[in-house]
Amino acid sequence: MDEVKVGIVGLGNVGMGTLTILAENQEQIALKLGFRLRVTAVCSRSVESKKLPAALGPVFQTTDWRELVKHPDVQIVAELVGGTVVAAEILDAAIEHRKSVVTANKELMAASGPEIWDRAIRAGINLAMEASVCGGIPIHAVLREGISGDRVMALYGILNGTCNYILTEMEKRNVPLEVVLKEAQRLGYAEADPSADVDGYDARSKLVLLAALAFGEKITPSDIFMEGIRRITEVDFRYARQLKHSIRLICGARRIPEGIILSVRPALIPASTILAGVQGAYNAVWVKGEYGEDTFYYGWGAGALPTGVAVVSDLMRVAREIRSGSPERVSPFAHERLGGNKPVPVTLQKRCYFLRFRVDDRPGIIAKLAGILASKKIGLEAVLQEPCDTKHDLPFVITTEETSEQSIREAVEEMSGLDFLNEAPLALPMETAL
Amino acid sequence: MDEVKVGIVGLGNVGMGTLTILAENQEQIALKLGFRLRVTAVCSRSVESKKLPAALGPVFQTTDWRELVKHPDVQIVAELVGGTVVAAEILDAAIEHRKSVVTANKELMAASGPEIWDRAIRAGINLAMEASVCGGIPIHAVLREGISGDRVMALYGILNGTCNYILTEMEKRNVPLEVVLKEAQRLGYAEADPSADVDGYDARSKLVLLAALAFGEKITPSDIFMEGIRRITEVDFRYARQLKHSIRLICGARRIPEGIILSVRPALIPASTILAGVQGAYNAVWVKGEYGEDTFYYGWGAGALPTGVAVVSDLMRVAREIRSGSPERVSPFAHERLGGNKPVPVTLQKRCYFLRFRVDDRPGIIAKLAGILASKKIGLEAVLQEPCDTKHDLPFVITTEETSEQSIREAVEEMSGLDFLNEAPLALPMETAL
Repeated sequence: MDEVKVGIVGLGNVGMGTLTILAENQEQIALKLGFRLRVTAVCSRSVESKKLPAALGPVFQTTDWRELVKHPDVQIVAELVGGTVVAAEILDAAIEHRKSVVTANKELMAASGPEIWDRAIRAGINLAMEASVCGGIPIHAVLREGISGDRVMALYGILNGTCNYILTEMEKRNVPLEVVLKEAQRLGYAEADPSADVDGYDARSKLVLLAALAFGEKITPSDIFMEGIRRITEVDFRYARQLKHSIRLICGARRIPEGIILSVRPALIPASTILAGVQGAYNAVWVKGEYGEDTFYYGWGAGALPTGVAVVSDLMRVAREIRSGSPERVSPFAHERLGGNKPVPVTLQKRCYFLRFRVDDRPGIIAKLAGILASKKIGLEAVLQEPCDTKHDLPFVITTEETSEQSIREAVEEMSGLDFLNEAPLALPMETAL
Repeated sequence: MDEVKVGIVGLGNVGMGTLTILAENQEQIALKLGFRLRVTAVCSRSVESKKLPAALGPVFQTTDWRELVKHPDVQIVAELVGGTVVAAEILDAAIEHRKSVVTANKELMAASGPEIWDRAIRAGINLAMEASVCGGIPIHAVLREGISGDRVMALYGILNGTCNYILTEMEKRNVPLEVVLKEAQRLGYAEADPSADVDGYDARSKLVLLAALAFGEKITPSDIFMEGIRRITEVDFRYARQLKHSIRLICGARRIPEGIILSVRPALIPASTILAGVQGAYNAVWVKGEYGEDTFYYGWGAGALPTGVAVVSDLMRVAREIRSGSPERVSPFAHERLGGNKPVPVTLQKRCYFLRFRVDDRPGIIAKLAGILASKKIGLEAVLQEPCDTKHDLPFVITTEETSEQSIREAVEEMSGLDFLNEAPLALPMETAL
């Protein structure tokens, strides 16, 4: 049987997961393709310590990626090393040697995806990047093929499994963030320094890539308003529940007449929405299309085997294209040049807001806060206060009618100087339209 | 700008939705493709009464599909007429004329998909069928590309919007099926003769197609155990809720060591599962892969524009393939020839069961029923009975430990002769592993 030859650079979790699938599932892959996908070369700094699946047969092994890239028995290079420096060199070299490329590299694609695609197209090779965003969820295939006829109006994602695990555990068990975070660290779900997750950086770099693919527009991290989950407390979930809502770290990108609003921030979402059903470390993406309306995609956002499925599926697609001689012709980043598509500041956003205060109770607090909201022309919807037997550090919530993020920021700024507040108000948008 | 030329046969809901998208969204489609997708011909029995979108420009209009198929300005034929007789002739003629084909035809693909694909491959054309199953959910792109590297172990779908609307309304409002069905008929969500929906036929023909694609195996309707929703009452939802479950019409296909078990039937699913969050007329498909584990896809299962998105996305894919000269090489139905993949009887299924009885109450009933279960070696898990002030036509529930469908059927058969039962027991599997 005929074959297409694959070289894998990087034998970490994803690389080993990819090899496992290519070895165990090779019969079915060959039946789906009509030819064999054969691993001919692997590269890793510690290649001698790696146990390759026996079913792969003989494989050229090297510690030097340059040897692999120029190896005559490699037609597709799978770049699974991560990071942006060496990975960029590997991609450059592969494109120069007219090898097609499959990459799982979120950082590199978020930073330089459009340029790399342009080079790949000029070189007449194939490029695929399903594994670079949302691991096991085939969201790139969906945007590129499945619903390519639609026009994306909005996209809401739960893109950081660690944050979603923390928030759903807090909600279920009514415990503080620090408790769940420590457990997550002990279980290996969270890093010793959790900042990349809980402060939103990881989710933001995923949204850079996802929004660029959905809207066909160059997005940079600075286009995205980012707020982490550190300020969320268990009491916020109790108030949210009274409002029939949950709290999740939502990565949002939506068209308004002025352009695209982009944000990564904790938000209230209706408890009945399917997005609120995303529990634990799962990821999900909700797409709202102009024609097809709501579609929703869910799965593991990371993990050796789920991400390995994305890499193998990409290898299959690229192998098919190589066999039929169809190099890439159009970049997935470049389809929107129709205007009205530029990132705009989140301050233009209009939403109802959930404002949570912690106060030392005394008469006149509500009047004072309501007065500030009124001065910004923000309508007050409800005041919620749990029964409580202390007057010290009392949490309570005000919800507002629809207003702009700009007005809420001005109100919060003015409130923050009030002496009865123990901390600045926490303002969360309510994504009631989901 | 260069172009690929499309002819549309059938200007019903889906045909008109397709034309709307092709007209309104043509700029973005051209940017995504790098060339234009132009509608050059349309065919409908009542073509003169159809108002085509002006943005399409001049279009050849005919009432004779043969004229369209052989028209020199048509490269792709979109077959949107439905049914199996004329549609089959249209596909035959298109393949004969070496025209590529996009179809939205569930019945035809379920009945003859593998044969049609084989003919298309021999003729060297392209064929696409995203719109033939699950309307706006790009499930075929997902199975064919997005997760093609995985091996499907199980698939659970909510594939009939009418049934899901009826069941979720019954659950929410605690009302009988007949009441919701009448409302659905008044609103146009259900047909005057609702049998195709509520008895499971529509869901079954969708499962034929979906399971064939997921498992790469020829499936026929007779391979699928089918039970409709007519026997579900509002009291069943109340008992299900006590067990923290919902009831939905579940289309299931899963591997067991002996083969694939296929069924369309109402089942209990955990209220916390994301599948239970599928409300109203939405559709959803849950795929369990050997490597990528759980992924889940959700959207409108029908409707002019969501289905139109599927047709347009297929037209874009086929147009790309035509331009790069890559005809179909492998049928999506043929990837599993590895054995262990044949449909097997549902009686092999092992599940916990929910048994609901309606009885005229008297002493000894539980003892009698428990005795029959014991005689079949079925363990009893719980007996549930709502407080009730009548002894006549009293509903109550027994749940069992895991047992086989075969044993449950034997027990139900034996119970059905008991004189205190007002109707045969209702037995629903509990899909607790979802």
